[in-house]
Amino acid sequence: MGETFATLRWEERSLILLDQTQLPEQEVYLTCQDYRAVAEAIRRLAVRGAPAIGIAGAFGVVLGAYELVQKREEDFFAGLEAVFTELAGTRPTAVNLFWALDRMKKVVAANRDGSPEAVAAALETEALRLYQEDIEANRRLGAHGAALLTDGMTVLTICNAGALATVAHGTALAVIRAAVQEGKRLQVVACETRPLLQGARLTTWELMKDGIPVTLITDNMAGYLMQQGRIQAVITGADRIAANGDVVNKIGTYTLAVLAHAHGIPFYVAAPLSTFDLTLPDGQRIPIEERAAEEVTSLRGHQIAPAGVTVYNPAFDLTPARFVRAWITEKGVIRNQGGKIILGDEGLQEE
Amino acid sequence: MGETFATLRWEERSLILLDQTQLPEQEVYLTCQDYRAVAEAIRRLAVRGAPAIGIAGAFGVVLGAYELVQKREEDFFAGLEAVFTELAGTRPTAVNLFWALDRMKKVVAANRDGSPEAVAAALETEALRLYQEDIEANRRLGAHGAALLTDGMTVLTICNAGALATVAHGTALAVIRAAVQEGKRLQVVACETRPLLQGARLTTWELMKDGIPVTLITDNMAGYLMQQGRIQAVITGADRIAANGDVVNKIGTYTLAVLAHAHGIPFYVAAPLSTFDLTLPDGQRIPIEERAAEEVTSLRGHQIAPAGVTVYNPAFDLTPARFVRAWITEKGVIRNQGGKIILGDEGLQEE
Repeated sequence: MGETFATLRWEERSLILLDQTQLPEQEVYLTCQDYRAVAEAIRRLAVRGAPAIGIAGAFGVVLGAYELVQKREEDFFAGLEAVFTELAGTRPTAVNLFWALDRMKKVVAANRDGSPEAVAAALETEALRLYQEDIEANRRLGAHGAALLTDGMTVLTICNAGALATVAHGTALAVIRAAVQEGKRLQVVACETRPLLQGARLTTWELMKDGIPVTLITDNMAGYLMQQGRIQAVITGADRIAANGDVVNKIGTYTLAVLAHAHGIPFYVAAPLSTFDLTLPDGQRIPIEERAAEEVTSLRGHQIAPAGVTVYNPAFDLTPARFVRAWITEKGVIRNQGGKIILGDEGLQEE
Repeated sequence: MGETFATLRWEERSLILLDQTQLPEQEVYLTCQDYRAVAEAIRRLAVRGAPAIGIAGAFGVVLGAYELVQKREEDFFAGLEAVFTELAGTRPTAVNLFWALDRMKKVVAANRDGSPEAVAAALETEALRLYQEDIEANRRLGAHGAALLTDGMTVLTICNAGALATVAHGTALAVIRAAVQEGKRLQVVACETRPLLQGARLTTWELMKDGIPVTLITDNMAGYLMQQGRIQAVITGADRIAANGDVVNKIGTYTLAVLAHAHGIPFYVAAPLSTFDLTLPDGQRIPIEERAAEEVTSLRGHQIAPAGVTVYNPAFDLTPARFVRAWITEKGVIRNQGGKIILGDEGLQEE
């Protein structure tokens, strides 16, 4: 299922991003020619979705490096440090950004004796490797997860864990795409995902492009659909998964997990291993980004609440591991057996 | 706590409604001088909220009757039938409308031998009685419910079950107002309540006018706040309550009830007895209004989802009685003891 759009691509030393703030009205591509433009695109959500942010950050480093190649070596490495710092400061929750920047830092360390040009070229090679790895990881996790879905199911999802959140295929939507390719007839229910409506604007858009049946609901309708027996599975993406399997994802994910649990509906999380943060024993210490009140009080410039109203706007929430029936990764499906789940470096284990 | 606005009032044989579709931007009053204008106001939600719809419907009958007084008696009564039918067809879920129309029909039946003028005058008297009864019922239910809230609590609510949903005081918000008047320091969290944002537009507006601290959240944040221990009670209104205590209320109420249950947070429903439909043994047969897709896909004329996307838009959902800790009425608080709840005509009983 080749998408007819490119979330991000690297061409002639520029990062070209589909500006997701303008979807679904317009399919506009942004050309980022310096790292500041990439940082700004991440901050204002022109590119979003944990895996896509990671890849965009990696290319941001490449752009930063090429901007600095005329400098003396000392200034080049110092300047590159500042590039890493700025990119790392864009968004705090999704770990894929830090994971990708770490991969890039290792390349810098390994090429410390090289010329600025050689380091920049090595960084470009690494970013392109990350790009290809993302496509392959999503294809594989989709194939693994597809086995969990059966013909005729209606699957509920939140936010956009699709091709728009990755280089291609998506995470939750990669699972759905793979199942559809196997000939299973699926229906998708997309929660609109306030405040920024990634479900209404993005998930519907990319599923309609693929011809996969999708029904849009407001977030507060999910429970009622489950009560009516109209949902057979929930699949979400993730922004960070702790070593015990706790999941931080888009605000509203926890509510869906509680609802799914109450209705005996399986709740799955689809994410590449780059989303797992094994340095954190559980999800409690994952930072939850809070965003501006205006995201809640206005929509596309139109005020929808009284001026000056107090707002709470956390962008993510925490779903404890016990609500997750299985984690779908490129190395396979980790089923929650009710015991402690260990996601080790050398693979996936349960005990 | 005298509100500084009037949701509806009867002046010089006109029904004057605060046009709630224009809040919070503008405080505009509509003057309805015929019953069709009232029906249209109910249909397009210029007046909304179960108790307010009932009172508006009653005054719609009065306007219809005065429009017909020049007719011959036979035509007058036939015309009045058509008025009842049109008003009853405006919205299907809230039972208060049918309850109020029944009260008005009884007046017609009792005055069948009277002149059209006498019937119209009797109907006007009855509508004014319903109006006063609503104010008094809400004042009383607020006082009864206030005992459930303690100093320092944060109370979550959905939609608008406030003065804007009634003649005055509100239902859920009457409870909060009464507790605040007793000197309890309360915080309110208002779910914005997509698609039509009654929480964001109306509940915040009327609580800010009263100086009661309110924080606005999107609907999908409720679970996360409960998980963090930031909510001590949930209070909602109701559009119809069956004889066993099942509650139909604004879409999203059921999700809040499941979440409250999962977190051990009491979930209360505040409603006058006119909201109880004792003809229905349970909530399964309460009709759930489905509204236009455009309510979900656009906001104030701005498209927020791809053109042609499939939408499901139920305006209400069903909360089974077992999730309700107590029903707060003008005759007292009915606590859910876990057994069967009987709401009898002669009062409130549990067995």
